[in-house]
Amino acid sequence: MATITIVGAGMMGSALSAPLADAGHHVRLVGTPLDTTIIESLQAGPLEHPKLRVPLPHGVATFFDFELEQALRGADMVALGVSSAGVGWACRALGPLLWPGVPLFMITKGLVAADGKLEVLPDVVRAQLPERLRASVFPAAIGGPCIAGELARRVETCVVLTGRDRPTLDRIAQAIRTPYYHVFSSTEVVGVEACAALKNAYAMGVALAAGLHEKRGGLPGSVAMHNYESAVFAQATVEMRRIVRLLGGDPESVVWLPGVGDLDVTMNGGRTGRFGRLLGMGLDVKAAIDRMEGATLECLEIIDVLAGALPAYEARGEIDRGELPLFWHMAEIVREGRPLAMPFDRFFGQLRG
Amino acid sequence: MATITIVGAGMMGSALSAPLADAGHHVRLVGTPLDTTIIESLQAGPLEHPKLRVPLPHGVATFFDFELEQALRGADMVALGVSSAGVGWACRALGPLLWPGVPLFMITKGLVAADGKLEVLPDVVRAQLPERLRASVFPAAIGGPCIAGELARRVETCVVLTGRDRPTLDRIAQAIRTPYYHVFSSTEVVGVEACAALKNAYAMGVALAAGLHEKRGGLPGSVAMHNYESAVFAQATVEMRRIVRLLGGDPESVVWLPGVGDLDVTMNGGRTGRFGRLLGMGLDVKAAIDRMEGATLECLEIIDVLAGALPAYEARGEIDRGELPLFWHMAEIVREGRPLAMPFDRFFGQLRG
Repeated sequence: MATITIVGAGMMGSALSAPLADAGHHVRLVGTPLDTTIIESLQAGPLEHPKLRVPLPHGVATFFDFELEQALRGADMVALGVSSAGVGWACRALGPLLWPGVPLFMITKGLVAADGKLEVLPDVVRAQLPERLRASVFPAAIGGPCIAGELARRVETCVVLTGRDRPTLDRIAQAIRTPYYHVFSSTEVVGVEACAALKNAYAMGVALAAGLHEKRGGLPGSVAMHNYESAVFAQATVEMRRIVRLLGGDPESVVWLPGVGDLDVTMNGGRTGRFGRLLGMGLDVKAAIDRMEGATLECLEIIDVLAGALPAYEARGEIDRGELPLFWHMAEIVREGRPLAMPFDRFFGQLRG
Repeated sequence: MATITIVGAGMMGSALSAPLADAGHHVRLVGTPLDTTIIESLQAGPLEHPKLRVPLPHGVATFFDFELEQALRGADMVALGVSSAGVGWACRALGPLLWPGVPLFMITKGLVAADGKLEVLPDVVRAQLPERLRASVFPAAIGGPCIAGELARRVETCVVLTGRDRPTLDRIAQAIRTPYYHVFSSTEVVGVEACAALKNAYAMGVALAAGLHEKRGGLPGSVAMHNYESAVFAQATVEMRRIVRLLGGDPESVVWLPGVGDLDVTMNGGRTGRFGRLLGMGLDVKAAIDRMEGATLECLEIIDVLAGALPAYEARGEIDRGELPLFWHMAEIVREGRPLAMPFDRFFGQLRG
């Protein structure tokens, strides 16, 4: 039994308290400065988490952001549960408080552009840690298909813990595993983390079909547009493999939990899927964003980051724009307001006969 | 413009008449001995196809099985639209009537066990053709995500035409392509066709989650079991790649339309998905079959064929039973009546840390 401090009390950070508590650990949940009302609500009584709509496990101790030091005292492991926008704050806040060798793992996903290259978050976080920690702290990250609301309700879930240091991975994986939270591991950080970011963009694309179907008067369960959807799914798989390879990762990462698994869950169960459906129904981007009522739309973030970073790769001759027809059409839709016109005939590259 | 004869007036054979007619061809649709009532119904007037529930395109000429010779007279291409159970009949009936060099393509899918090996249908069909045709007829097959009811309604669809002879593929692909029927091609017959068969088995497995969710009182749209479903999807992808490799095919076939694309469409739109859901709800196999009201269940066929054939591969040391935990659990469920207990902890082989 260990003491594990989760930093970030949003949906995924909080949901993680379920397997950690069920695995027998002391769990401390610390809100970021943006989570103050969540912590207040949790401390007011044995109430459900205001976003997850489910009570946290008994015994989870909650802390405000200004209590971070206290929440880390005597902890054995630290989980970073902030959104990608909160990573900078978390690194600044945690830097002075962490200790050499601390097992650190994050549920945050994203790609960050720097110097004409895209980097994955575990590497970005490590670079932001104080010098004194860098030789002994190897941030790990959790990828794979996991909707927070399901994990909080103990739905069987398979995830991938990825990081560059095998002993750290083994230690964390063994600690956080439960009979319903199946933790696999991989040292293929670039592949796993690139998938974790990319799947948001591509899930939006796959979900367009459901919106198109609705727009044309289709009902759930009626003859739908699954042929359309599945073709986009297949092309998304092809393009994710291409981008992972571009970033120096192993395309095999796409072919299990981090890629096709997470793409499936995100289009079916996530905000991104709902957003893609709204676009497919013909709403323009602004109207679709309004309908999402303030939900974080990772798909827009990652499309912006990629669209900004890919030209440098193209200029170096590392990829051709024609290799990612689906991505670039999604970028046209959300960045330029172009109408949906899926470029099927440009899919699957040289495979077309 | 060509004359194309489709043999088999079931859902997929008949649906194919839409793109063929829209591409400007004369289309002749021939029923098998089991399609007599369909042909009668189509000839009675400009009515909808009794199974597709949509009218066939104007100008499609219909024929009974005993009119096959007439339907083939002067034809330029032949499409085989029978189910896997009808392939033997079709080869016997067509053998004496086909001519050297005829472009022949099929929508039939399946794996056939013979002499301790699994073979794909285009090879099986070629072997059943008369000697005089074998040097010049290279049966092609259509794989990839295509629900017949959607194709008949001109939903955008991407498919893969596969065969061993590139000129034949090019000729057929060019002839049958329309602005909504996007035909890609591949000479990777074993990979594409193995996927076309395997996806039925695995789609049943993926769909179990939806049934489990219903059984536990979940409603469509509520917090569901997408984590469970996506983990099974990912494992299905891994196992399909393994089996394709076992059969001598290229595992890359799994990573685009024939594999993940067709798996997605089948679990969402097909009979197999509905059947898997019934099993997930806790119905035993017999009760689930009864509820499907006579629908062909390719998933049961392919599970039987594989479960029968794999032991020979295992005996030769070509695969270990532990490499296919999802497949063997599905086989236990449908062949032995075992209760559902998804073996997540045995998923993803050596990847687990």
